[in-house]
Amino acid sequence: MHTTIRNLAVLALAAATLPAIAKGVVVNQAISEAEVLAAQQAWCKALVDISTVGAKEGQPAAKALAEKVIDGAYAYQLGTVLFKPTLTVNPQTFRTTRAGALAYFVGGDTAFPKDTGFALKGWTQCQPVNAAVFIAGDSATTMGKVNITGQDGKVTTVDKTWKFVKDDAGKLRIAVHHSSLEYAGQ
Amino acid sequence: MHTTIRNLAVLALAAATLPAIAKGVVVNQAISEAEVLAAQQAWCKALVDISTVGAKEGQPAAKALAEKVIDGAYAYQLGTVLFKPTLTVNPQTFRTTRAGALAYFVGGDTAFPKDTGFALKGWTQCQPVNAAVFIAGDSATTMGKVNITGQDGKVTTVDKTWKFVKDDAGKLRIAVHHSSLEYAGQ
Amino acid sequence: MHTTIRNLAVLALAAATLPAIAKGVVVNQAISEAEVLAAQQAWCKALVDISTVGAKEGQPAAKALAEKVIDGAYAYQLGTVLFKPTLTVNPQTFRTTRAGALAYFVGGDTAFPKDTGFALKGWTQCQPVNAAVFIAGDSATTMGKVNITGQDGKVTTVDKTWKFVKDDAGKLRIAVHHSSLEYAGQ
Amino acid sequence: MHTTIRNLAVLALAAATLPAIAKGVVVNQAISEAEVLAAQQAWCKALVDISTVGAKEGQPAAKALAEKVIDGAYAYQLGTVLFKPTLTVNPQTFRTTRAGALAYFVGGDTAFPKDTGFALKGWTQCQPVNAAVFIAGDSATTMGKVNITGQDGKVTTVDKTWKFVKDDAGKLRIAVHHSSLEYAGQ
Repeated sequence: MHTTIRNLAVLALAAATLPAIAKGVVVNQAISEAEVLAAQQAWCKALVDISTVGAKEGQPAAKALAEKVIDGAYAYQLGTVLFKPTLTVNPQTFRTTRAGALAYFVGGDTAFPKDTGFALKGWTQCQPVNAAVFIAGDSATTMGKVNITGQDGKVTTVDKTWKFVKDDAGKLRIAVHHSSLEYAGQ
Repeated sequence: MHTTIRNLAVLALAAATLPAIAKGVVVNQAISEAEVLAAQQAWCKALVDISTVGAKEGQPAAKALAEKVIDGAYAYQLGTVLFKPTLTVNPQTFRTTRAGALAYFVGGDTAFPKDTGFALKGWTQCQPVNAAVFIAGDSATTMGKVNITGQDGKVTTVDKTWKFVKDDAGKLRIAVHHSSLEYAGQ
Repeated sequence: MHTTIRNLAVLALAAATLPAIAKGVVVNQAISEAEVLAAQQAWCKALVDISTVGAKEGQPAAKALAEKVIDGAYAYQLGTVLFKPTLTVNPQTFRTTRAGALAYFVGGDTAFPKDTGFALKGWTQCQPVNAAVFIAGDSATTMGKVNITGQDGKVTTVDKTWKFVKDDAGKLRIAVHHSSLEYAGQ
Repeated sequence: MHTTIRNLAVLALAAATLPAIAKGVVVNQAISEAEVLAAQQAWCKALVDISTVGAKEGQPAAKALAEKVIDGAYAYQLGTVLFKPTLTVNPQTFRTTRAGALAYFVGGDTAFPKDTGFALKGWTQCQPVNAAVFIAGDSATTMGKVNITGQDGKVTTVDKTWKFVKDDAGKLRIAVHHSSLEYAGQ
């Protein structure tokens, strides 16, 4: 054994002189806190953008934008998204399909007759206030308040949980989204 | 090179005759759907158990049981749990600490003065009805209704999201829990 | 509070009658043992296939096939693969790029002058014998012997570690691959 | 619906004034590059430490230290470790048990009769030179050279792959370890 090891010592020294090997490739797919906060802000911006486009250009334009937002920010391509929007009612509380999410945001889908378009309500601002951010393994989850401001300046606050996953292209996508009005108390 | 490879062939054949190597050790830590459903049922059973103990033996006994349940079923030991209980109000909506969870379930903590003990409300049954179960990577998330029955037979339904992770001992623990009353509509 | 809960009971009962909600969507991305074993067999089959194509149709055809194999079975699109092939030498021991993997398998790349094409050595059979399989979180790792048979019937055994990850399309890909000749002893 | 939302606005404003909520809890379990490099250095230091203790105090003391190292740095408590040490031979190439790892490092176990104690060979230095580091999801994998220096000043270089996972206490542990002598060429 000693013989074998000694023979290899020459190769080892050769390797030690190679800066290209010594430097190494580093790929870090871990989700960072900054990425999470940016994804939250992107969701908020998209909500206001859809509202703005809807008010200026009408529902079809808002719908086209909402489709882009859903395809870019949610993870429906993974099979489903666990999405409980703020204002849905039975029997269509959960929107596990892309069509259900789109109907919730911009309405106009006879398959979801009670949807009037949450993103068309004239929102002008949206701000998350996190109670907690938990980054672990292949996902990051946030929980907290999101304050959204209407045209009349009134603020609606929702309790919101988002779970983000990173897709193969390195982009965070919403895999879980549970939003609810605050409990009003007794 | 060919020489080297041929010399190794003898060892290779020796290895091929070893059933101990051929069999192999298999460790599978992936979360199964059955584990997820069992964890949901365990949560429901614990809620009813705490209610029952509270009614029969009083709040201190219920509190002792609730502590066991939280320590066994939640993941506070990982640093925090993202917990939005059904009936909490500002400024203590979120219960990111074990103490906050305990106060929610059994009350009696002056630090959480509005908590009257959700698990002490006389629940007799609890049944999850999943809209979706998503198992991916190191976690499993469920979203759906949970129907809980009171002593008067009336059913309260909540919209609930649970994210479970598997701890080093192989046990599922709740890392995220968002519960909300159904939206009552316009 | 009781009033609020009671009002919701009617909605709850309505929801309970909806089989579509009760059934639930299940997406399970966890890696199964069967998927791991199939991915190992696919690697072995690809090695023999490239050898066969190379012998019958020449290196260009083998190279074209090897490119398909690498693109389909390795995870270079994630940024790098940690690949230590069996027979590489300094200063190009590690093949962290697709080009380096391709050169190893089929040679013919002046940037990797010592590569003669491992997959062109006339392999006729390839069989993994696992010592251990570990499935955890978002990856599965195997370690064991792989026996590959040459045209002369002689078997070469290598010690091999593979780490597989599942891509967004649900396909297992090799993210880590360390192969080494058996230690010959003193 | 509008009425409901407006009623909630007051609570929302109250929440917005609460710095405790606004700050948020952040738990980030993602593995950092610095943690990975530190874990590699810790392995190297442990190897030299065991060698030093063995030379000064004898095998029993070295064994006691090696047990601490294995229990602190490897993940055998998860069920198995995929460990292919540098110098093991058939039929005990792979050390999927703690006992097998201990025997490899310090020998003295009749169940592993060919083990003479790799860590007792008088190593004085140990230095990893990474070819690549890949951090993804719940693990981090490194591949590269490790140069270990003997008492005579000669350097032995091995090709080494480590996969680290973070345990519930936040400590990196070796779940996969494949080490091999460099291929000597034709």
